[in-house]
Amino acid sequence: MTLTFGHIIDHLTKGITRLEQTVDKLEPGDPETGVQGIVTAFSASQSVIEQAIALGANLIITHEGVFYSHQPHADELEQDPVYQQKAELIACSNLGIYRFHDYLHRYTPDGIVEGLIRELGWQTYVTEHRPSVSILTIPVMKAEEIAEYLKKQLQIPYVRVAGNLTASCVKVGILVGYRGGGSSAIPLFDQESLDLIIAGEGPEWETPEYIRDAARQGRDKALIMLGHAESEAPGMKYLAEQLSAEFPDVPVHFVKDQPAFRVM
Amino acid sequence: MTLTFGHIIDHLTKGITRLEQTVDKLEPGDPETGVQGIVTAFSASQSVIEQAIALGANLIITHEGVFYSHQPHADELEQDPVYQQKAELIACSNLGIYRFHDYLHRYTPDGIVEGLIRELGWQTYVTEHRPSVSILTIPVMKAEEIAEYLKKQLQIPYVRVAGNLTASCVKVGILVGYRGGGSSAIPLFDQESLDLIIAGEGPEWETPEYIRDAARQGRDKALIMLGHAESEAPGMKYLAEQLSAEFPDVPVHFVKDQPAFRVM
Repeated sequence: MTLTFGHIIDHLTKGITRLEQTVDKLEPGDPETGVQGIVTAFSASQSVIEQAIALGANLIITHEGVFYSHQPHADELEQDPVYQQKAELIACSNLGIYRFHDYLHRYTPDGIVEGLIRELGWQTYVTEHRPSVSILTIPVMKAEEIAEYLKKQLQIPYVRVAGNLTASCVKVGILVGYRGGGSSAIPLFDQESLDLIIAGEGPEWETPEYIRDAARQGRDKALIMLGHAESEAPGMKYLAEQLSAEFPDVPVHFVKDQPAFRVM
Repeated sequence: MTLTFGHIIDHLTKGITRLEQTVDKLEPGDPETGVQGIVTAFSASQSVIEQAIALGANLIITHEGVFYSHQPHADELEQDPVYQQKAELIACSNLGIYRFHDYLHRYTPDGIVEGLIRELGWQTYVTEHRPSVSILTIPVMKAEEIAEYLKKQLQIPYVRVAGNLTASCVKVGILVGYRGGGSSAIPLFDQESLDLIIAGEGPEWETPEYIRDAARQGRDKALIMLGHAESEAPGMKYLAEQLSAEFPDVPVHFVKDQPAFRVM
């Protein structure tokens, strides 16, 4: 039996309650197409698409949207030359692209969070997985030491840090992607007695301002923002490992992009 | 006649069409209170409040919310010790705090944008002010040179940059605060033939991903994110200068906070 895009998607979503509304979708692509190879990535960027073609893969599994938006892209973008060149490459390559976002976040534990925690080697420190945060009790480290550890483990060139960097941290909350916003992150510091939150991104006038005030008041609290892609790419790397184990005859590659932002 | 908080607010909002809904509000504070001194700041952080008290000011004019949210803070925050300590300091100090956000953005040109452009010394390069973007035609500079210039002029330790940093830039769009999101920023690159956008912040999966693709396709486009506070504080500094000129008998100070984030 030929393994098809549809088989892969059924495998990825099995056991998860159907979602009435979801951004997850095979587009472009036909569920009946046979899988020649799979690339997983945080986003199906121009670079990732080119690498997928070079690797002979015909299915990209991406966490974020292809055209710079969580929801389907606006019609006005279709006149944009960057959009047009990318859309043409996708069409000519006969690639299938499966957006795998909502269902992966509904794994137990959240597949993206699990990938990050594994990449950090912190699986044994997890005390609780909740839908949008995982709480860990780690051997005591200073916030600035944790920042260096994160950079090394995730092989990322920088992180953004706020609060008291010499705070001794034991209770740590991890919130991937855009979950670093105030309504998600701020209440956890007090309610869960967190010393540190490690997040992807969030509005700058929310959690960072709270942490700055906390530090000014003399509290030992800190915040580390990894970047959105940097916090979620390890989940897509872990997904590639899982698919490779499940479908040993299919070439599966995780493609890590360069960070979109550099710091100057 | 004693100059009151109410007089200052009337002056700041005169000539602007009344807004049905606005976050702008004197809270706490009584419009009848006499003004002893004014501090303007991007946010009424713990540090800014302490400095206002030390300066003998009794009115803080802040652009962002006091309690880490664009909208009024959630009730659950009232149990938080950081919230409580800050709220107690504000109450004991008898400070008035005026949130001055929506009306200032409705100045012609936008008061926050004007302050940033003045701080850059780029007033003569403006070709068009629109409600959410100002378009400039500057003497040709490479994107990386502009990044260094921005750091020097704004006295900020870093910026985040994406795209082609060696791009020669002439047409530049400036979008302050959270206007760096995809729906605001992306269409401008093609429609206005922009070489560079300088913005405050925005979701990382939108404009930065677009610019990364554009650069990968060989296009000379770049994006510089200043940070939300870093893009808007100059507008509050300019406001202090204007108030000082208008009310020469009132001590007016702009207080610049340290950046909430450092980079490691």
